[in-house]
Amino acid sequence: MDAIPTIELMLIGIGTGHPEHLTLQAIGALKRADLVLIPRKGADKADLAELRREVCATHLDGQARLVEFDLPVRDSAASRYLDGVQAWHAAIAAVWAERIATGLPQGGRVALLVWGDPSLYDSSLRIAERLQSAGMALRVEVIPGLSSVQLLTAAHAIPLNTLGASVLITTGRQLRAGGWPAGLDTVVVLLDGACAFQVLPPEGIEIYWAAYLGMPHQLLLAGPLASTGPRIAALRAGAREAHGWIMDSYLLRRSARSPAGAG
Amino acid sequence: MDAIPTIELMLIGIGTGHPEHLTLQAIGALKRADLVLIPRKGADKADLAELRREVCATHLDGQARLVEFDLPVRDSAASRYLDGVQAWHAAIAAVWAERIATGLPQGGRVALLVWGDPSLYDSSLRIAERLQSAGMALRVEVIPGLSSVQLLTAAHAIPLNTLGASVLITTGRQLRAGGWPAGLDTVVVLLDGACAFQVLPPEGIEIYWAAYLGMPHQLLLAGPLASTGPRIAALRAGAREAHGWIMDSYLLRRSARSPAGAG
Repeated sequence: MDAIPTIELMLIGIGTGHPEHLTLQAIGALKRADLVLIPRKGADKADLAELRREVCATHLDGQARLVEFDLPVRDSAASRYLDGVQAWHAAIAAVWAERIATGLPQGGRVALLVWGDPSLYDSSLRIAERLQSAGMALRVEVIPGLSSVQLLTAAHAIPLNTLGASVLITTGRQLRAGGWPAGLDTVVVLLDGACAFQVLPPEGIEIYWAAYLGMPHQLLLAGPLASTGPRIAALRAGAREAHGWIMDSYLLRRSARSPAGAG
Repeated sequence: MDAIPTIELMLIGIGTGHPEHLTLQAIGALKRADLVLIPRKGADKADLAELRREVCATHLDGQARLVEFDLPVRDSAASRYLDGVQAWHAAIAAVWAERIATGLPQGGRVALLVWGDPSLYDSSLRIAERLQSAGMALRVEVIPGLSSVQLLTAAHAIPLNTLGASVLITTGRQLRAGGWPAGLDTVVVLLDGACAFQVLPPEGIEIYWAAYLGMPHQLLLAGPLASTGPRIAALRAGAREAHGWIMDSYLLRRSARSPAGAG
């Protein structure tokens, strides 16, 4: 009986679109890879794959093999959102397994360059878990990267939290379903394809919005939600049309309440 | 009348204790600095100033001047927590103003190496605002760094969020005052000097704890809160005693509820 080859999977956070978002640790991990998997997400998002190729071209010494693969597409028509996501993860796990088995039949180190940070609204860790459950001898190492939350606040030069207060990180879907979360003054919204901020009564809320963070065509807009929200919706629609895709995020801050509430 | 010299202040996130947490962007910014301010936080935390010196020694070409200063101490006996913090920020602003005026009388670029990310539970942006309000011609640029939230999840190789769900980032003080936040399954706690997780009914909660993230003496502990909480409290007390200081953080995850709640 053959021994199961051991795979070390390195999930390397690369930030959100600027090659200099990489940490020294990420570069070191990339250099140790035997195989780098590059997902292709369709022509619309071609510049995302291109960024990964550029990162590899800059930092690899030509030792690691680059293997591209077409990322399966999520069925957004699935009757329940989470069912659609689960099926999508299963499909991606199957592609990873095939490419790793072909590329590293004797085992070795495989790297995936993860947009943003591998811990935040990213499926790589869940997909790796599926491979482990299916019997692959897989060790996972996470090398953190800058997330869009940090790049958003840095671009606007604002603190994430108000003094000593909590911050909620959430999705457009959750904000739309639940409205403004009780007792909080700062909410960061990611994965929002449809300007969920429009469901909020805008009075007393400031919005800090960004798209294509770190890229040459980065967009920033900030101001009172009442007047700035419609401008963002229009700018976003135009940019999405022009580039074929968009990735954006925003921070919502409710005006200071009485200090008694700050605990 | 003399023109007011223009100061460019670069707040550079450096991660949490490993020199390779630095991004290429952070290194580039550091190299552009004319003056680097290094805060000294007392003998107990001497290794934090030492890390900053090491980062400068590695990446600076000897052009920038390093200026150390003793960080004013926060009055933790102030009758109200936020009052104590405000007075502390005013004292720090006065020291920055003095060191910048002395070090860059004609203006120029000053860098501060910020632990973690400059946007998250860090006072630098608020202190810079005080200087602007006091009339200093100060432009602020934020270069994001890895935060302990990311290093914590990376060290445990866990996702920050559960599938499609929200995450609360909060402080020990807030957790102690408010208990488990309604409707959430993930809470990350920072700035907790006294194991606030002990106030929670531990049933159904997992804890992922870390101290000295990225440092040679990094500590990790994870498991059910009921059995792991007391072990963390003991380990934390011993480590704090041994090193003279501790910086720790943890993620609390409530067990999966019915998928209907994940909406």
